[in-house]
Amino acid sequence: MNILWIFAHPETRSLNASLMADGLRALEESGHRTRVSDLYAMDWKPTVDAGDFRRESTDRLFVGAEQEHGYREGKLSDDILAEQEKIAWADAIVFHFPLWWFGPPAILKGWFDRVLVQGFAFGVKDDQGGVRRYGDGGLAGKRALVVTSVGARESSFGPRGIHGQVEEVLFPLLHGTFWYTGMAALPPLVVYGADRATAQAADEAAAQLRERLRTLPTATPIPYRHERGGAYDEDLVLRPDVARGRTGVGAHAEGAPGAG
Amino acid sequence: MNILWIFAHPETRSLNASLMADGLRALEESGHRTRVSDLYAMDWKPTVDAGDFRRESTDRLFVGAEQEHGYREGKLSDDILAEQEKIAWADAIVFHFPLWWFGPPAILKGWFDRVLVQGFAFGVKDDQGGVRRYGDGGLAGKRALVVTSVGARESSFGPRGIHGQVEEVLFPLLHGTFWYTGMAALPPLVVYGADRATAQAADEAAAQLRERLRTLPTATPIPYRHERGGAYDEDLVLRPDVARGRTGVGAHAEGAPGAG
Repeated sequence: MNILWIFAHPETRSLNASLMADGLRALEESGHRTRVSDLYAMDWKPTVDAGDFRRESTDRLFVGAEQEHGYREGKLSDDILAEQEKIAWADAIVFHFPLWWFGPPAILKGWFDRVLVQGFAFGVKDDQGGVRRYGDGGLAGKRALVVTSVGARESSFGPRGIHGQVEEVLFPLLHGTFWYTGMAALPPLVVYGADRATAQAADEAAAQLRERLRTLPTATPIPYRHERGGAYDEDLVLRPDVARGRTGVGAHAEGAPGAG
Repeated sequence: MNILWIFAHPETRSLNASLMADGLRALEESGHRTRVSDLYAMDWKPTVDAGDFRRESTDRLFVGAEQEHGYREGKLSDDILAEQEKIAWADAIVFHFPLWWFGPPAILKGWFDRVLVQGFAFGVKDDQGGVRRYGDGGLAGKRALVVTSVGARESSFGPRGIHGQVEEVLFPLLHGTFWYTGMAALPPLVVYGADRATAQAADEAAAQLRERLRTLPTATPIPYRHERGGAYDEDLVLRPDVARGRTGVGAHAEGAPGAG
């Protein structure tokens, strides 16, 4: 497979940097091709602004429309185009970052904000003019794996842990970004207690990561529901007989506890 | 009250900019004092890096520890110190942004990443050495209101809507950031269909915002559970008799459907 590794950590001597080096080596030894976007090393610009669009007009900026226009006209800035080319090349993407405020660091959030534009990643239509979304879209057929480190203990991110069950906390990324654009979201690999990691804990994390990378092509994704698979009505609401009585983000995966 | 308005939109002629101007006027007419951090206008730096710390060492950077050290030693960069001073001044904070990829734009994510450091916003201890967190912390006593615009229809963010119930999608912000640092999280104001807003819809949004600002000092916050209110055990897991049988992010608010 072609595997793109998006990395968002400021320190080249961190546990995460060492995990990435180890992971890339494992992928290459298995015969995969790899490319890396090391966002800090690239000095990636996180902020969407008028400079993204080689724009001559000073009219009011409608961000979504301008992104789509820029994409169609080939006028997006070179750093955005380079990332889109890597995504198009990739069969799978690894997103690797420390969890800050229960989400990706700003430099990675800005990668999503700037690169995954309408017309490229979403808002693409099928032959009948239907919008392809949630399980389909511009990135359909690709797989996405989150690798993230947290300071907290595993129990606190469990089904009833105080921080919220980790896949539900990551719902904006796993469902709202990956699945929305058509990518299969794999269960995230979370490295717990990262700030206090001993050498032994680091070795264990590396072994967990290698196993996840070994199964990257075959692992079963989170079974989110397809927008046009029959579960949703015209208002994009779950039909009454689907996940009966359930509400909230947990209702959008099949087979979740009580989700029917 | 002293009210800080954090604004993250790149276009001064946007619906959001007009809503902010209207909201600030309403607050001042009611006798409140206001300050604004217009992140785009300030050219706010979103990325956490070694430049945040007036750091002489080139040792390995441990972000959390370095942030705390920088705070205690007064060595954080001036832009961070200025925001912390505004927060300390404020009784309530309005976070106003377009929802991009189901979260705040990178420029605002970076405000959280850089400003809410350990020792200031969290990781503060009480007299017995216990860590104050979730319902308590460095920002205890303050109120936080999200005002956000989305392109989608309201139904799609409802309890069973495809994008996920909006308060659960915003859980990393409402619970993981506001409540974690001690701030009371008010129910967010979501402006739907923002890209297609007619003049009438814009007027309605402005009226909704004014009503939310009128009740800012008195509105009932989301009833998230206090970490040390008896609901959680030593592993920070909900005790069996609390929200019996519930899992996921929805279990952490009292009185949620089925949350007991």
